[in-house]
Amino acid sequence: MNSMTATPSAKRLVEIYDTTLRDGTQGEGVSFSLQDKLNIARRLAEIGIDYIEGGYPLSNEKDVAFFDRVRRLDLGATQVCAFGMTRRRAFRAADDPGMKALLAAETPVVTLVGKSWDYHVTEVLGVSLEENLAMVGESVELLASSRQVIYDAEHFFDGWKANPQYAAKTLQAAASAGATHLILCDTNGGSLPEEIAELVEAARQAVAGHDVTIGIHCHNDSELAVANSLAAVDAGAGQVQGTINGIGERCGNVDLISVIANLALKKRGYQVLGGGSLESLTELSRFVYETANLQWRGNQPFVGNSAFAHKGGMHVHAINKSAKTYEHIDPVLVGNERRILVSELSGRSNIAAVTAHHRLGEDRKLMDAILAEVVRLENQGYQFESAGASFDLLVRRVAGTLRGHFEPIKYRVVAGDRNAATHHVFAEAIIKLKIGDRLCFDAAEGHGPVNALDAALRKTLEPVYPTLSEMRLVDYKVRVVDSGGGTAASIRVNIESGDHNETWGTIGVSENVIEASWQALVDAVEYKLHKDESQPAGPVRPPAAAITEPTR
Amino acid sequence: MNSMTATPSAKRLVEIYDTTLRDGTQGEGVSFSLQDKLNIARRLAEIGIDYIEGGYPLSNEKDVAFFDRVRRLDLGATQVCAFGMTRRRAFRAADDPGMKALLAAETPVVTLVGKSWDYHVTEVLGVSLEENLAMVGESVELLASSRQVIYDAEHFFDGWKANPQYAAKTLQAAASAGATHLILCDTNGGSLPEEIAELVEAARQAVAGHDVTIGIHCHNDSELAVANSLAAVDAGAGQVQGTINGIGERCGNVDLISVIANLALKKRGYQVLGGGSLESLTELSRFVYETANLQWRGNQPFVGNSAFAHKGGMHVHAINKSAKTYEHIDPVLVGNERRILVSELSGRSNIAAVTAHHRLGEDRKLMDAILAEVVRLENQGYQFESAGASFDLLVRRVAGTLRGHFEPIKYRVVAGDRNAATHHVFAEAIIKLKIGDRLCFDAAEGHGPVNALDAALRKTLEPVYPTLSEMRLVDYKVRVVDSGGGTAASIRVNIESGDHNETWGTIGVSENVIEASWQALVDAVEYKLHKDESQPAGPVRPPAAAITEPTR
Repeated sequence: MNSMTATPSAKRLVEIYDTTLRDGTQGEGVSFSLQDKLNIARRLAEIGIDYIEGGYPLSNEKDVAFFDRVRRLDLGATQVCAFGMTRRRAFRAADDPGMKALLAAETPVVTLVGKSWDYHVTEVLGVSLEENLAMVGESVELLASSRQVIYDAEHFFDGWKANPQYAAKTLQAAASAGATHLILCDTNGGSLPEEIAELVEAARQAVAGHDVTIGIHCHNDSELAVANSLAAVDAGAGQVQGTINGIGERCGNVDLISVIANLALKKRGYQVLGGGSLESLTELSRFVYETANLQWRGNQPFVGNSAFAHKGGMHVHAINKSAKTYEHIDPVLVGNERRILVSELSGRSNIAAVTAHHRLGEDRKLMDAILAEVVRLENQGYQFESAGASFDLLVRRVAGTLRGHFEPIKYRVVAGDRNAATHHVFAEAIIKLKIGDRLCFDAAEGHGPVNALDAALRKTLEPVYPTLSEMRLVDYKVRVVDSGGGTAASIRVNIESGDHNETWGTIGVSENVIEASWQALVDAVEYKLHKDESQPAGPVRPPAAAITEPTR
Repeated sequence: MNSMTATPSAKRLVEIYDTTLRDGTQGEGVSFSLQDKLNIARRLAEIGIDYIEGGYPLSNEKDVAFFDRVRRLDLGATQVCAFGMTRRRAFRAADDPGMKALLAAETPVVTLVGKSWDYHVTEVLGVSLEENLAMVGESVELLASSRQVIYDAEHFFDGWKANPQYAAKTLQAAASAGATHLILCDTNGGSLPEEIAELVEAARQAVAGHDVTIGIHCHNDSELAVANSLAAVDAGAGQVQGTINGIGERCGNVDLISVIANLALKKRGYQVLGGGSLESLTELSRFVYETANLQWRGNQPFVGNSAFAHKGGMHVHAINKSAKTYEHIDPVLVGNERRILVSELSGRSNIAAVTAHHRLGEDRKLMDAILAEVVRLENQGYQFESAGASFDLLVRRVAGTLRGHFEPIKYRVVAGDRNAATHHVFAEAIIKLKIGDRLCFDAAEGHGPVNALDAALRKTLEPVYPTLSEMRLVDYKVRVVDSGGGTAASIRVNIESGDHNETWGTIGVSENVIEASWQALVDAVEYKLHKDESQPAGPVRPPAAAITEPTR
């Protein structure tokens, strides 16, 4: 039982390299705005990710803008990398547009991908094997004169199986030219752990004379990406590349969440993230899902909402005696939580933690009342993870400290098309509010019904509350909560609003997308008015439900 | 490279044991009707699954009925198993209600779970270590007199780590009493592949004198269930237990789809499913998702909709030369298919590939026109990657083969709240359509404006096109295309619709969420009407908004 009984004197550092912002966006349906990318980069740096691949500056203006903006963020020890490929054939490296774009990104680190598989060199690139070696060597050399260069060997494992001598030469070319890292990529995701272990060892021997770190980059096409990454680390790899939640093309990249948790909590002898806490992994996972407007995977290992869900009866009894009876790790270690049907009391301490800034003290009854309201709303489809402002208002409401700045009396929207052929559409909103003792009735037009409601709300409130003019809508997301029911199911709207200081999230849930949007809009405005008088809040976590039968 | 170069003279048979109908239903939100269970059992038998665990007859009437009904099905060589636990303390085995229920199920095989971990015996069951051994031995012995008995050793790996001597004794008790199989369960899902390999070997030695098959039962809490199952097989396990799509409690059981595909197509030296074809794996996966009313996992290894999706020109160019350049296996082997995604940069050859079923031939001008229309719409925020049906209609429109079944003239929706305090909301839609020569004007109410539009559309069209009654809305998603602009930015709506045969995606984009939803609804209905008359536009291969970027 080597892995269990070994007590090494020193832990080996394994670097974590995140490519959520690049490979992640290759996943179907994933796209991030510039602000999304900056927000994610900040979160990644906060948990101590060693490297963040920010994008591909050659063909993508958003990525160019990202590199420009990210330089102004303080990301601590985290290094930002620009990604590109080796120079094109028939170009001098210094004249290659890709090389120029990489240098113009002004990142401390450049990650360069090149070909290792002879077949790809001659048949896909259409260059000679020698020319490809020159492309690798010259590109790395040019960049290495002013940057740290991480070299990603595309199709390394398939390439080695086809032509080990040539694959080795490509690594040697990159190492000789000054790359600090050689990352072995299982591009097609088809390798088995035993193959990975064997070829990582072979690669290490092939570049034994060079001072380079070998790394691993896996895809999950065989559902083995996590095992493959761990096998590579056991075989000596010092860096693991992947994405948060494993987003990426086809079956995705390896999920860094599982890699980090396994290396830090299961395997012995390794240290990741500078040995720091993993307690924000769950929050990070959900933040990335929300930002990408993807559904959370409830059964995701370590951080899923169901990952530590226990049924009633015997389980709960056993869990109360000792959590290890039905849990492989303590969920707190990764910022997740145990969910038990009868757990409403165990949740009180969570509520106390997330409401600390409200200075509600040790009022158990109040904590229970807040928790009960959270549970009630969650059963309707609310989720407060990315709706901290709505949660803040909920706490004030239950605690009796909410000072409503206006009272919505009614609203109505009308939308339609005036001309089907040209899609000339219109939207109008009529609202009635009570501000103090005054009833206000007004209307506005908008680009769509939600925009019209927003316009009517501002038109009515701004004369009384002029700071609302600072407020803007940052993002608007809609999803069906129970997707089994189509448009008749509950619809959850998340609105992100901002002013010059901060952004805040609000939520609305209804069978009606307009009503859900209206709730989120009203909360957004109310939160802004409250925060302009006092101080704001942080994010939250939820509880849940279940059944009883034997397990094994 | 043992696993790659070994060419064993005979392949070792590995049995596949499916517990989708039992452990699968422990997954949150999963439940099957009696008919669902029978349908799934039939499908499992068709692909040659060796054992099907049908349910837990003690506490579950539906499962009792299942065992009664399943006996009348011809499942070929597939064996049905009833699942239960060892007798309770203080009962004689023959008097134990659980034993009686298992025998009453009249299955050829009984699967019995018992405790291997000393801590669980004394602290959870609350019996002495000796009594637990008697419970195991007497229960197996009673059942083995008339049934084949598969013994599942709960918490085997954690139990062995805590007290190897005792864990070994529990296996010996089951083997001595007549169990044909001893299944080692990683109940908490926390073990690593190297631990699994080592303890499978240890278990084999512990029961070396007995004629039993060792098996493996993994959970996916560390995202290692597939690797753990393969490691167990390499260490000598002759049976793998799991579920289709890995459904199950917490993070799920091991996904048998990936286990089967890896054993049959990747690993060398093993035979599964009697050596039969895996070509119905994709269909089986989707059938189980549909039956459980769960979303497909697009990125699921081997069988996911995105598992063989390729973007960009260079990839397509390479794929056309040789699929292995970017595919780890031929998707046809598992009944899946390659999807070439169209994008502005991908060129005419992609368009030709994805429109092949339209039989448009080699018309370069037409291909260019289609591509130009895709580019125009992508610039407005359309993305066809999950809107294959809208793309299909686009092709027909450009090619002049679209036969519109109705023409939208105008629509209007009104939505609002009648009472702000109770959130009592309403939504009404008025539509005007032209069907043939006839102008139709009608209205409907709905849960929300989109539901009201959908209701009005169906109300108007169903009398003319009765097959629309088969159609249902499967999912509805909304996102802001440029999330920098808030509600005044473009809004993209994706609607997924389905009938008994297939599901299809449509898209609408507008500044107005109602207009975008209307476009997607109209396309969904039009696609359904087209597909019902023409023979299969075939599975729609949807294109994507992709940038040609390097991979690795």
